[in-house]
Amino acid sequence: MTRILHAAETAVAQSLAGFVAAHEELVTFGRDDKFVRRRTLSPGKVAVISGGGAGHEPLHCGFIGVGMLDAACTGHVFTSPTPDQILAAMDETDTGAGCLLVVKNYDGDVMNFEMAAEMAADRHRIETVIVEDDAAYGPSVRSRGRRGVAGTMVVEKLLGAAAERGEDLAGLKALGEGLSGRLRSMGVALRGVTLPDNTRETFALGPDEMEIGVGIHGEPGLYRTGRAGADEIVRLLCEPVLAQLSPLTDARPLLIVNGFGGTPPIELHLAHNLTRAFLRQHGIVPARALVGTFVTSLDMAGLSVTLALLTPEEFALWCAPVTTPTLVW
Amino acid sequence: MTRILHAAETAVAQSLAGFVAAHEELVTFGRDDKFVRRRTLSPGKVAVISGGGAGHEPLHCGFIGVGMLDAACTGHVFTSPTPDQILAAMDETDTGAGCLLVVKNYDGDVMNFEMAAEMAADRHRIETVIVEDDAAYGPSVRSRGRRGVAGTMVVEKLLGAAAERGEDLAGLKALGEGLSGRLRSMGVALRGVTLPDNTRETFALGPDEMEIGVGIHGEPGLYRTGRAGADEIVRLLCEPVLAQLSPLTDARPLLIVNGFGGTPPIELHLAHNLTRAFLRQHGIVPARALVGTFVTSLDMAGLSVTLALLTPEEFALWCAPVTTPTLVW
Repeated sequence: MTRILHAAETAVAQSLAGFVAAHEELVTFGRDDKFVRRRTLSPGKVAVISGGGAGHEPLHCGFIGVGMLDAACTGHVFTSPTPDQILAAMDETDTGAGCLLVVKNYDGDVMNFEMAAEMAADRHRIETVIVEDDAAYGPSVRSRGRRGVAGTMVVEKLLGAAAERGEDLAGLKALGEGLSGRLRSMGVALRGVTLPDNTRETFALGPDEMEIGVGIHGEPGLYRTGRAGADEIVRLLCEPVLAQLSPLTDARPLLIVNGFGGTPPIELHLAHNLTRAFLRQHGIVPARALVGTFVTSLDMAGLSVTLALLTPEEFALWCAPVTTPTLVW
Repeated sequence: MTRILHAAETAVAQSLAGFVAAHEELVTFGRDDKFVRRRTLSPGKVAVISGGGAGHEPLHCGFIGVGMLDAACTGHVFTSPTPDQILAAMDETDTGAGCLLVVKNYDGDVMNFEMAAEMAADRHRIETVIVEDDAAYGPSVRSRGRRGVAGTMVVEKLLGAAAERGEDLAGLKALGEGLSGRLRSMGVALRGVTLPDNTRETFALGPDEMEIGVGIHGEPGLYRTGRAGADEIVRLLCEPVLAQLSPLTDARPLLIVNGFGGTPPIELHLAHNLTRAFLRQHGIVPARALVGTFVTSLDMAGLSVTLALLTPEEFALWCAPVTTPTLVW
């Protein structure tokens, strides 16, 4: 891959094989290795299916398991999975209650999941939830609207838990759409992404620069500025998040501090502590916090802050038991 | 910290506070924030205590919890905790059965844990297990012998599980020492460490270079060579590991592919798959494999391979239930 060099064409397949081998008690490859699925399906449960380009690991495959996803389709690096992959995942994991597709808001992903849903409309009941949590781009900036970033794991956890307790397709769709205005993320990059086919970084940052409002595909962010201290970085991430969140009475705030791949745990926990202090000054005390490397952009250094204002029912879904390669509680 | 800039003097304390806040159901600060401990102790169980410099997270604090450590002491970045910290941890977590200290083999760590043990000899029963799993340095190269690296988590898991089921101090000491010849690790760096007090890297690697046999404090490795493909990197890591492992009949091989902090999951799983293929060619099929970022060197890019040839009894200890911030099963 990027720094552990390997032929780009086979790197994703090799990495997926390594992932499945490490977690074979929980997951297995689907037909022709087109996707990864739970080893054991639950008959009569809605199948929750997600996917996207490689390079964002542990998203999505790391969230397959009881209480979260049934299957995930992985494309090439930063490239959508094909409709064929998505179709195969639906065919193999729909046990009668239909399929709920969780899709990050990118043109390619939305198009390919839509195409697969159309192709399968005669044999599966299907609903789709689009994730668009990135506070960096308002709907007016890009035709497609906000990008789906680290908040995707919140949507996958809540919908997965609801499906597990027997929620039907319509209920899952309503749950996902209801969450949309109360889920926002914002990211900073301190070093760009190294693409696997060469050593080029998609955007180059000097040692004294940082990029605010980055996505997870190496695309530039909202603006570039001088490298600030951690307190200032936290402020630059949290302010747009707070400004865009729809208020909610009796909210249970969920905080996620997510590393982009090249930033170690010591820095993520430091940022987490400063984020808590910032939120406290704004009257927000997280009911739960999760700190780690969950939604990555290959080896990009940097992190994102996600805040979700959950209802008590949604918070119970977040806290519900989960057994996946990445989240276990 | 290194890239999320923060004053070096306070960065470690801030990061620890963020860690404890994220896992407050499991861990809490000990007296005067000198160490981190389990929230709930088990009376009559041997207290398993470890520690070392900051910069290796999630080691050691991430392994505090039922089935693993009782307490961990963290020093400044790459600096041993003080005897005073270690003493405080023993005083607060020894519930009558004594203390087992797990110490990575570095001069400062060994000296400070020894000093604490001497100071506490009149009030605690104490045994120490030194971890020295690094295949990069034989005993003849450095007076202190092999360094303790990613294999430390194997020792902490096995001793923690044994303590949990009621093993006494002598039994734990024997278990740790018995494992020593059957546990080896080897690491590669693809980019050096950025120290927190400035932006200097401890050793600088060109884009076409890599450093084989690195430790986890930014010290140079055994040798530098041209950047090789992932297959070749895996061979360079596995060969010295296999050469140094004491053979064991009926072994249960445990494989760990560990990221050093700046290397993302997609690359670790790729390396994991290639490592399995290499081991298979040498007649070794891992009974379990663990892939992730566990023993870091700040933001160093690279990874290490750890192989442990466990007895069936040791393997059962590895598989025994554990509930920590990092490992849960």
